[in-house]
Amino acid sequence: MDIVEQIVSGDIRATARLLRDIDDEIPSARDILRELYPHTGKAFVIGFTGSPGVGKSALVDQLAICYRKAGKTVGILAVDPTSPFTGGAILGDRIRMQRHFDDPGVFIRSLATRGHFGGLTRSTSDMVNVLDAAGKQVIIIETVGVGQDEVEIANSAHTTVLVTVPGMGDDIQAIKAGIMEIGDIFVVNKADREGSRNTVRELRNLIGLGARKRNGDDWEPLIVETEATKAKGIEKLYEAIEKHRAYFLTTNTEKWRQILQKRAKIQFVGTLKDQALRVLLERIEAHGDSFDEMIQKIVDKESDPYTIAQQIIDRELG
Amino acid sequence: MDIVEQIVSGDIRATARLLRDIDDEIPSARDILRELYPHTGKAFVIGFTGSPGVGKSALVDQLAICYRKAGKTVGILAVDPTSPFTGGAILGDRIRMQRHFDDPGVFIRSLATRGHFGGLTRSTSDMVNVLDAAGKQVIIIETVGVGQDEVEIANSAHTTVLVTVPGMGDDIQAIKAGIMEIGDIFVVNKADREGSRNTVRELRNLIGLGARKRNGDDWEPLIVETEATKAKGIEKLYEAIEKHRAYFLTTNTEKWRQILQKRAKIQFVGTLKDQALRVLLERIEAHGDSFDEMIQKIVDKESDPYTIAQQIIDRELG
Repeated sequence: MDIVEQIVSGDIRATARLLRDIDDEIPSARDILRELYPHTGKAFVIGFTGSPGVGKSALVDQLAICYRKAGKTVGILAVDPTSPFTGGAILGDRIRMQRHFDDPGVFIRSLATRGHFGGLTRSTSDMVNVLDAAGKQVIIIETVGVGQDEVEIANSAHTTVLVTVPGMGDDIQAIKAGIMEIGDIFVVNKADREGSRNTVRELRNLIGLGARKRNGDDWEPLIVETEATKAKGIEKLYEAIEKHRAYFLTTNTEKWRQILQKRAKIQFVGTLKDQALRVLLERIEAHGDSFDEMIQKIVDKESDPYTIAQQIIDRELG
Repeated sequence: MDIVEQIVSGDIRATARLLRDIDDEIPSARDILRELYPHTGKAFVIGFTGSPGVGKSALVDQLAICYRKAGKTVGILAVDPTSPFTGGAILGDRIRMQRHFDDPGVFIRSLATRGHFGGLTRSTSDMVNVLDAAGKQVIIIETVGVGQDEVEIANSAHTTVLVTVPGMGDDIQAIKAGIMEIGDIFVVNKADREGSRNTVRELRNLIGLGARKRNGDDWEPLIVETEATKAKGIEKLYEAIEKHRAYFLTTNTEKWRQILQKRAKIQFVGTLKDQALRVLLERIEAHGDSFDEMIQKIVDKESDPYTIAQQIIDRELG
């Protein structure tokens, strides 16, 4: 069996290897992604987003257990932009895997993003395709949800869950308003804390203000209170998500297709851009120029970034 | 006077117009950036980063007042990825401008990022150049500091200030460890809250663990407690920042240069990538293909994103 067949048959080791290759930007990964592509499009994708410290991981792990009880296989992608600095992601994966250690039906992977020039949105999207092709029926993406990439990632999920906690500080009102429109379901986690009812009320008011209308659907966002560490409220969260899934599988059937279009765009434009950059940087060297010397010229004000970039574009694409 | 001369002479209206054009990705902005480039490289750039709700804006506004008292002009760029959804950024600018309304020496601008395919890091970097050329002596960039872009932006400042508050939840330990290495100064804001001393102690321990060493300098990060809304501790923060500036202007003289190199790389590679993509998308249409039809083919599984992207690269750059 080649690696494509292995992944499609659900082989965990082959799947993990490909995800690592995507993260490391190994070129051969693209060929495998290409062959896997016909096997994608079946998974239900849930985006979980919220500030650090709101308890997203605990919540997602509990939800995974719910889906396993319902007989579904689960893939979890945790997008953790802080991980390049410490390797914390890998450690985190190990700790979290222990919660599901006797269950091969749950696959967890953190994206140890390298802090390079962009690409986070695309690699996440590629990794969703891999887990999808590997037969995971439910794929959960966790993001911190405040960066541009993270919002875009959340936005390309079928159902987006926004997680907050009571008393997140005075800026929270603005933040809530800002990300309101991408939330299908709102979770107030650590609901045993003071102020939980207030937070729920605030959310309800914001939803009432119709901040959401711009998305063009008539889904009324649901609010769920949870205590993830005590597994409280998880069933309700599960039901809310399933209700949203049913909503666009029956009422708003266009949405599933729109999500596939969004993913296709991210993957196509991202690949185009990265490949073009790779070729152009190779051409710089092939032309006898050195990248470092170019940067030095810019720093020394002998030229500027915009002129040099335009010269290369004109020469190679003119 | 043309717009370049206007900006270099410190004209606020011309500066604001160019920043808006950069945000709107208007092609002519690049020509102006090119002409402004020789006038850049003088400003001292400070990055402020921290989760939503920690009080970054209040802190930055207070610090701006300090720098004004010291006779310096100040530019503030607030990177707010949530703003595309509500237009909240513009409102926020107006409220904040009122705090400095009688002072033309302070310029505030929020980046209403459009959520397009990347580009946040580059536009921020371009905007720093504009404020620099416009004669702002101190430029403060505010970011939420958890997204990939935000970390990169903070990383390209001369001095990076990480802001936290007491009791930010149980995940904070991991987060701190993750972003530890980019912090030159740590601020515990809302220091009147319970647990402030604990947070300071935790930070001191983390610094002691030498998590920072990978950056390759021997600066020992400073910790400052503040209450921004009462203007408490701001002088100490100001002194800490000035101490760090003195450090690399005298002890670690390479750093100023490294920061310029980083900015040059972001601007050069970013421009190259964006321009290449623009030309390639134009070529798709020129070749008689439609972008939307291509995406449709991918969704319908008649092809895949990787194959189509490669075909275009081969045709145009082969």
